[in-house]
Amino acid sequence: MKRKEIEKQLKKELDKDRFTHTMGVMYTAAALAMAHGADMEQALYAGLLHDCAKCIPNDEKIVLCKKYQIPISEAEEKSPFLLHAKLGAYYAEHKYAIQDNEILHAIKVHTTGEPGMNTLDKLIYIADYIEPNRDQAPNLTLIRKLAFENLDEAMKQILSDTLHYLQEKGGEIDPLTAQTYEYFHNN
Amino acid sequence: MKRKEIEKQLKKELDKDRFTHTMGVMYTAAALAMAHGADMEQALYAGLLHDCAKCIPNDEKIVLCKKYQIPISEAEEKSPFLLHAKLGAYYAEHKYAIQDNEILHAIKVHTTGEPGMNTLDKLIYIADYIEPNRDQAPNLTLIRKLAFENLDEAMKQILSDTLHYLQEKGGEIDPLTAQTYEYFHNN
Repeated sequence: MKRKEIEKQLKKELDKDRFTHTMGVMYTAAALAMAHGADMEQALYAGLLHDCAKCIPNDEKIVLCKKYQIPISEAEEKSPFLLHAKLGAYYAEHKYAIQDNEILHAIKVHTTGEPGMNTLDKLIYIADYIEPNRDQAPNLTLIRKLAFENLDEAMKQILSDTLHYLQEKGGEIDPLTAQTYEYFHNN
Repeated sequence: MKRKEIEKQLKKELDKDRFTHTMGVMYTAAALAMAHGADMEQALYAGLLHDCAKCIPNDEKIVLCKKYQIPISEAEEKSPFLLHAKLGAYYAEHKYAIQDNEILHAIKVHTTGEPGMNTLDKLIYIADYIEPNRDQAPNLTLIRKLAFENLDEAMKQILSDTLHYLQEKGGEIDPLTAQTYEYFHNN
């Protein structure tokens, strides 16, 4: 499907704030692609679709993952909202007809990250964190600048701040997030 | 007015493609602000409003400029579409209640440029040219990368390409555009 068609569909399926955030991620990912010489079209599509399954209720997410034979990890069982990433990749492929595996992969890993993330994965992960409608995270001005200079340094800072935040509020930490933190801090 | 309110209003006043372009400019200007350590909120508002008077018919633009006592240059008399910039700045102030003079100035000079443009002026001028929905200009990949590295180098390239394009098609060249070209190439 064309970007404009997908946008129209998502406008119906996402709530207002989620749609606004989605536009922010799409355009911020595109700008990061411009700055880092990456593929802008891939960034636009991955950004546009990264949260396409976000507004499905959590219990339904589990039902749908089982239906589509998407494996559910222990962490996802405890925090089913995490499933919107895997389910989003599934919908991107089967509902929005995206065939580019790199786009699907970037959607799949956009919430937890993954050791060995490629450039597109990083663009989406970072854009999700820094897009202009975000205003809650600490160090946003610093991370926003860093993101256009060095993707890995931006990843490090975001992962540190995310783990710190999750530890503070006593939230569940997906092992993948911890592994991604280790990956960026030891490489 | 708040950004979301203005966006809602513009969605009614601009045609579909112009609104899409507007969103592209707003977010691209914000990303450029992030990269260059400029004020992101100013960039968002100036980007959002830069074309707010674009969809007014040209003859009406002239009538409105006279009504609001906005001076019309010789070049603008010949190419009245240029007036959307000055008229846009007027509407931004009087219809959308923007009081920040830097935002108003960036809207005013976004089409022709101006010698001595400040950072916000450049962000909007450049974002207007490189936002992801644009695909006609030559050297877009190069200019998109340059824009996140060095605003003045991006300005130089855009002004060269713009003058070249206008000369090729035999279009009217606003003296301000030529002066802006000279300014960036001699400083």
